[in-house]
Amino acid sequence: MAADTTQLQSYQSQYHSELYEHVLPFWLKHSIDPLHGGFFNNLDRDGKVYDTKKHMWLQGRQVWMMSHIHNDLHGPGGESEYLKAAKAGATFLRNHARVADNPRRVYFSLHRDGSPHFLQRKMFSECFYVMAMAEYARATGDEGAREEANELFEAVMDYAKDPSLLGRPVYPASTPTIDLAVPMILLNLVDELNGPGGSGHEDICEWCVGQIRKHVRPELKLVLECVGADGNPVDTPEGRLINPGHAIEAGWFLMNYGKRKGDASLIKMALEMIDWSFDFGWDKEHGGIYYFLDREGYSPIQLEWSMKLWWPHCEALVAFIMAYEETGDSQYLEKFRTVHDYSFEHFSDKKHGEWFGYLDRMGNVTHRFKGGPYKGCFHVPRALFLVEKTLGSILGAGKK
Amino acid sequence: MAADTTQLQSYQSQYHSELYEHVLPFWLKHSIDPLHGGFFNNLDRDGKVYDTKKHMWLQGRQVWMMSHIHNDLHGPGGESEYLKAAKAGATFLRNHARVADNPRRVYFSLHRDGSPHFLQRKMFSECFYVMAMAEYARATGDEGAREEANELFEAVMDYAKDPSLLGRPVYPASTPTIDLAVPMILLNLVDELNGPGGSGHEDICEWCVGQIRKHVRPELKLVLECVGADGNPVDTPEGRLINPGHAIEAGWFLMNYGKRKGDASLIKMALEMIDWSFDFGWDKEHGGIYYFLDREGYSPIQLEWSMKLWWPHCEALVAFIMAYEETGDSQYLEKFRTVHDYSFEHFSDKKHGEWFGYLDRMGNVTHRFKGGPYKGCFHVPRALFLVEKTLGSILGAGKK
Repeated sequence: MAADTTQLQSYQSQYHSELYEHVLPFWLKHSIDPLHGGFFNNLDRDGKVYDTKKHMWLQGRQVWMMSHIHNDLHGPGGESEYLKAAKAGATFLRNHARVADNPRRVYFSLHRDGSPHFLQRKMFSECFYVMAMAEYARATGDEGAREEANELFEAVMDYAKDPSLLGRPVYPASTPTIDLAVPMILLNLVDELNGPGGSGHEDICEWCVGQIRKHVRPELKLVLECVGADGNPVDTPEGRLINPGHAIEAGWFLMNYGKRKGDASLIKMALEMIDWSFDFGWDKEHGGIYYFLDREGYSPIQLEWSMKLWWPHCEALVAFIMAYEETGDSQYLEKFRTVHDYSFEHFSDKKHGEWFGYLDRMGNVTHRFKGGPYKGCFHVPRALFLVEKTLGSILGAGKK
Repeated sequence: MAADTTQLQSYQSQYHSELYEHVLPFWLKHSIDPLHGGFFNNLDRDGKVYDTKKHMWLQGRQVWMMSHIHNDLHGPGGESEYLKAAKAGATFLRNHARVADNPRRVYFSLHRDGSPHFLQRKMFSECFYVMAMAEYARATGDEGAREEANELFEAVMDYAKDPSLLGRPVYPASTPTIDLAVPMILLNLVDELNGPGGSGHEDICEWCVGQIRKHVRPELKLVLECVGADGNPVDTPEGRLINPGHAIEAGWFLMNYGKRKGDASLIKMALEMIDWSFDFGWDKEHGGIYYFLDREGYSPIQLEWSMKLWWPHCEALVAFIMAYEETGDSQYLEKFRTVHDYSFEHFSDKKHGEWFGYLDRMGNVTHRFKGGPYKGCFHVPRALFLVEKTLGSILGAGKK
C-alpha cells in the first residue's frame, strides 16, 4: 500500500476521538430515561428531549450499539457504562416492545412509560429487536435474550416470505416486485446472529445473495431498490428508484459476506454496487449523496429526494475504507476522503456533539435535532467504529 | 371599496385565462385514459405519463372539478368537454374504486386497469369520493351517484367517530388527541352535499365548528393541527405542529359557513385563523408559505417542512380575496397581492401549462412533474375559479 501512513493514523485518531469524545457521550448523557428505563431518542441539538415517545427501531439499534462497544472494549461479561446503558434499553424493550396479544410483532413507537403508541405494517422493528438481543446476549451471556433473538428472527423470516402476516393487504399484481431492503437486512441479521467469526443459516444467506443479485444491473451500472420478482426492471417510480446510500450499505454487507466465504465474485459484485451507486448518487454540483434519484431522470415522487442525509454518508465512509482495505486501490481512499471532508464539514456538530442528520441539497442544516423518529445512536457511531477498526487493520497489515 | 377597479379587473382577466387557457387544457389533453377510463394523475412537466397508477384522492377531486366547471358554464344537464371528462372519471371510480369485499371503503390507488394497488388506513379517499359523486350528480341528474355520495358520507361519519373501523389499531392514550383535518373536511363535505344555497346536516356542521374551535388558540394566536380532545395544547411534535396552508383553508371553509349562517362571530374567527396562520407561516427571509412549523421553534420532524408547496398558496389566494370581499380591508388585498406575485412567479409554468407543485425553501423548483400521488387537477383550478368568481362579485358589487 502506497498510502501515507501518517495520514491514515491521523484519520484513525480523528475517528477514535469523534466516537468516544463527541458522539457516544452525547447519548450516554442525554438519552437514558431514569424514570421508566429505555432511551429517549428524540433529542434536540443540545440533547434536550423534545418528545418523550420512544421509537423501537432506535431503542433496538442503541442496545446493539452500546452492547457492541462494550464487547469490543471489555469482551463479554464485565461492567461498563456502555453495558449499563444497554441493560436499561434491553430491559425496557423486553418489558414493553412486543405486542401484547401477538409477541411475534414489535411496536414502532411507545409512550414514555412503555404503553403502545403505534404499530407499523412493516418488519423493521422486529429486525432491530433481533439485532439488539443477539449482541446484548453476547455482552451478558443472557440466554433468554439469545432465545428472543432467535424467536423474532423466525418471525421476521415468516414476514419476509408472507408480508400479509403484517396486516397489509397484498393485492395480486400483474408484475409482482421485490425490495432490496429485505435480503439486505436479512443478510446483516444472520451476520449479527452468527457473531464474529461465526457461521450458520447459510441457506438464508445464499437466498439473500440471489435476491440481491436481481437488484444489481450491470447493463445500467446501477443497483435498483425494487425490481420484478423475475429480476426484470419495472418502469414505475418505484422500479426506477435509486437509493444510493442503501445500495452502498448493501454493498458493504455483501463484501463482509464475500470475505467470510472467500468468494472473489461476491466481493467484485459488492465493489460494483458501491462504485455505481456513488458515481450516480454523488451531487456533482453541490456535493453530498442524494437521498433518492430516478434512474431515468424523472423527479422522484419523494419530497425529500434532493436532501443530503447523514446515514448514506456514514455508509459510504465504511464502504470506501473497506474497499480500500480489500483492494489497496487508491481511488477508494480518494473517495473516502471526499465523503469524509463533506461529512465532517457539514454533519459533525462541534458545539454539542453528535451529527446533524438532515441538510438541504446545498448543504444547509435543515433540522437541528440530533435524534428523531428515524435517527438515533446507530449510523454515526457504527460508522466511526468500523472505520477506526478498518484503519487499524490496514495500518497493522502495513506494519507486517 | 377604495381599490383600483382596473387592477381588480386585470386580476380577474388573468385568473380567467390562467384557468381556461393554461390549467384546464393541460388536464383535458393529458390526463384522460382512452383505454381504461379514469385519469392519469402522474404527469410529467410536459404532460407525459410517468406512472400509470391512478390515485383515488385525485380521481375524485378531478371528477369534482370537471363537474363543477361544467355546472358553472352550462348548469345541470347539457354537454361539454368538462362533463365528458367528469363522466370518464366517475365511471372508472364507480367501477373500481370501492373495496371489493367492503364497499364502504375506497382504495388509495389502483393500477391502470382498475385492479387494486393500495388501501390506506385513512378516510380521505372516501371523502373525495363523496365530493366527486355529489357534484357529478348535480351535473348529470344521476340519482345513483347522489345515493353513492350519501352512502359514503355515512361511512365517513362512522370513521370520524371510530377510526378503528379503518383497521388502524387505536391504543388507549393518557392524552387522547384530535386532528383539525377531520372537522374541516366534514364541514366542506356537508357544503358539497348541500350544494349552492342548500342546507342540511346542521348538527354535523355545529359539531365541526365546535371541534375547529378547539384548534384555534387566541392565547397563542395560532391554529394547532392537533390538540387534546379536551381542547388543551399538547407538548409533542404533533401537538406543536403548525400547517399554515391547512389552517388557512379551514379558515375559508369556516368563512363560507359563517356567511351562510349570517354569524359574524364565526366570520371573525375565520379571519383570525387566516391572519395568524399567514403571519406565522410566511417565510420572511425567502418568501412563500412554509409547509410545516413547530410553534415552539423546534425543527419539525417532517423532512419537507421548509419546502414551499403549491396548495397552501392556492388556499391563501382564495382566503385573502374572500377576506377582502367580506371586510373591504385593503390589508387583505395587499396580502393577496403578495401571495399572487410569489405564486405566479414560482409555481405557474408558462411553457407547458399548470403549476409546479414543489419548491425548496429558497423557491427553486425541486420536482418538475405537474401531477403526482398527491397533486392533480384540483387545488390550482379550484383556487383560480374561486378567485375569479370572488373578483367578479366584488366588481359587480362595486358597480351597484
